[in-house]
Amino acid sequence: MNNKAAYTPHEQVTELKRGAEEILLEEELLEKLKSGRPLRIKTGFDPTAPDLHLGHTVLINKMRQFQNFGHTVIFLIGDFTGMIGDPSGRNTTRPPLSREDINKNADTYKEQVFKILDPALTEIRFNSEWMIPLGAEGMIRLASRITMARIVERDDFKKRLADNQPIAIHELLYPLAQGYDSVALKSDIELGGTDQKFNLLMGRELQKQYGMPSQTVLTVPLLEGLDGVRKMSKSLDNYIALEDPPSEMFGKIMSISDELMWRYYELLSFQSVSELEKIRQQVKEGANPRDTKVALASEITTRFHGSAEARQAYEGFVRQFAKGVAPDDMPRVRIPSDDNGILMSVLLRDAGLVESSTDGIRMIRQGAVKADGERIDDIKHILKPGTCSTIQVGKRRWARVEVQHLPGEGEQ
Amino acid sequence: MNNKAAYTPHEQVTELKRGAEEILLEEELLEKLKSGRPLRIKTGFDPTAPDLHLGHTVLINKMRQFQNFGHTVIFLIGDFTGMIGDPSGRNTTRPPLSREDINKNADTYKEQVFKILDPALTEIRFNSEWMIPLGAEGMIRLASRITMARIVERDDFKKRLADNQPIAIHELLYPLAQGYDSVALKSDIELGGTDQKFNLLMGRELQKQYGMPSQTVLTVPLLEGLDGVRKMSKSLDNYIALEDPPSEMFGKIMSISDELMWRYYELLSFQSVSELEKIRQQVKEGANPRDTKVALASEITTRFHGSAEARQAYEGFVRQFAKGVAPDDMPRVRIPSDDNGILMSVLLRDAGLVESSTDGIRMIRQGAVKADGERIDDIKHILKPGTCSTIQVGKRRWARVEVQHLPGEGEQ
Repeated sequence: MNNKAAYTPHEQVTELKRGAEEILLEEELLEKLKSGRPLRIKTGFDPTAPDLHLGHTVLINKMRQFQNFGHTVIFLIGDFTGMIGDPSGRNTTRPPLSREDINKNADTYKEQVFKILDPALTEIRFNSEWMIPLGAEGMIRLASRITMARIVERDDFKKRLADNQPIAIHELLYPLAQGYDSVALKSDIELGGTDQKFNLLMGRELQKQYGMPSQTVLTVPLLEGLDGVRKMSKSLDNYIALEDPPSEMFGKIMSISDELMWRYYELLSFQSVSELEKIRQQVKEGANPRDTKVALASEITTRFHGSAEARQAYEGFVRQFAKGVAPDDMPRVRIPSDDNGILMSVLLRDAGLVESSTDGIRMIRQGAVKADGERIDDIKHILKPGTCSTIQVGKRRWARVEVQHLPGEGEQ
Repeated sequence: MNNKAAYTPHEQVTELKRGAEEILLEEELLEKLKSGRPLRIKTGFDPTAPDLHLGHTVLINKMRQFQNFGHTVIFLIGDFTGMIGDPSGRNTTRPPLSREDINKNADTYKEQVFKILDPALTEIRFNSEWMIPLGAEGMIRLASRITMARIVERDDFKKRLADNQPIAIHELLYPLAQGYDSVALKSDIELGGTDQKFNLLMGRELQKQYGMPSQTVLTVPLLEGLDGVRKMSKSLDNYIALEDPPSEMFGKIMSISDELMWRYYELLSFQSVSELEKIRQQVKEGANPRDTKVALASEITTRFHGSAEARQAYEGFVRQFAKGVAPDDMPRVRIPSDDNGILMSVLLRDAGLVESSTDGIRMIRQGAVKADGERIDDIKHILKPGTCSTIQVGKRRWARVEVQHLPGEGEQ
């Protein structure tokens, strides 16, 4: 973490550009930083998705960077549009949310983001605050500011028009509402993913139309997932959740390629640009990249779990992989079985070590399943009631399992 | 005026089709009439234009016809959109109106339309009643019902898109708001000019989407003005205002061509379809169309001024044109002048007999100006203070003018 006083406006720009995809316009950003006043940095969040993973933190880290320079960030929750959802019902991933859902999600957000953000320099806002008073009349006035030609410049609209896919009129209103948030908040800068660029520029345009200085737009790239190819996402199961336990978070970071490590350093580490340059140099000169990866895993695990937990995760990792022993913090589960016992593949599923028994059979076939250190090769392997075993799947999945007797149907 | 009991549903359809441009759908209209319940007939009016002329009454007459059959008409004033105006400022003929303006305009409407409509079967409504409570949220939900492709089917949008003319997003919302009025009012039928067809169909579509029976749409043609060619409008100065004095209204109707007379009979007369057929037959068999025109002028003048005034207008017309004498009800005006007197062309303007002094000169040149029955040919003709004259311009413009002495600047 850095200190405000230590950075000139030019140096701030250098740090802010690190890992940023695009700044519109950089000269403008410099001018605003030169003014010396604390800037207002807007970033919008979807009220439906409060379970954050490291991919989301690229943006949140950029917010934190602005806070390091003394600026205020606005964590804007789009509850107004969230309460409407997708009224056409075409998009089932956007069901309408109740006030209660939204407040609950906001609390979940806070719990997670305040591990990165400084609460003293964070405003949490909800856009219903100004969108509801706008009324039907205000909505029409707002809509009068932008032409249809301008809106359909957005890539996904352009594509859908070209493909003769329907676009409902309310979809044209959402970018306007998002742009109007910038008017209401008088934001100096808005941050967002590259996929949000059109909407961020809409805020810039509407502010101008409402006679105020236009926000500078800074986009950040989408972070690649553990596979190093596709963007990190829950549905691709290539993510590190902020809620992942320390050993899992540490282990997942240790599992990435050396190439991806540098990308993660750039987008996730709080090391300054010049410190990062030094680390790269050391590896070039022969330092072991594995140690560099440990440093990254430690930094990130510390951020979300504190240094004691991160230290323990590190030690567990070293023990588990370097020495091949079971981790201390593995889950302990009891699995019920009748007199006949339970198939290993089913037990793996019931213990939550694999997704399905089919998945369990696959892992056995791959030679990835051990019981008390012994590899299990028989896909029909059965564990009798009373068995107590340390089960290992692959490198990182462990459980201490007790097979518990449960009378069968005929034995009652 | 006709009596409800006298008309079967089929006969009602026959009368309603008279002078209608299009009915969507006629079978549906018949079904609704067969239900026997009083139907709800919606007709929207622009809150900015309360000065009605006979062109507007084509629609109002159709409303009256429905009332004759026992149905309720809703005189809907679009005050919600009226209060917004055209916020883009592109359309200067749509300035925003205050609540006060709107109430005043509504009173003016009532004064005029209740000469045709039965107040007992008329609901006067304002769409702000349901549009304001809709809110920004409701506006978005409403907008979700219709696709962009559907909206840009409207002829003027299509044309503007083809011409690369800008269309602001709020313009897409207005037809939706108008359609939503039909949802709020649960209208069975909506009437409008042919130019409103798209918007009337939008109401039909939205009602269906909100799970209610769709309104039947009935359009009426735009009435030709006195020239018989272009549509009647104030700006083309080919109109008969409902507020025109009896003699002027009567005289203007007498001035139209025989061909246009039949069009006016069809769209403006309350004679039934079969009575109208009889009149046509009489003229075919040799009756003087001038008498037929007198009957039309009398019917319409009676409608707006009562039978005594209409009778007087008729007698005045006969005297003025058949015998060449000045009408009784001509305006009396005092025109100020200094010692030098006043040019006839200027006096004509100041007395409101012509639009401008240039126009006055033109009329003198045409030999269309008389003072006390004497034609004035000199464009420099001067009237001295103290003159008292009956001035005539063309066939129908008359005034009794007194030139009043007003001391000049040097004489104080």
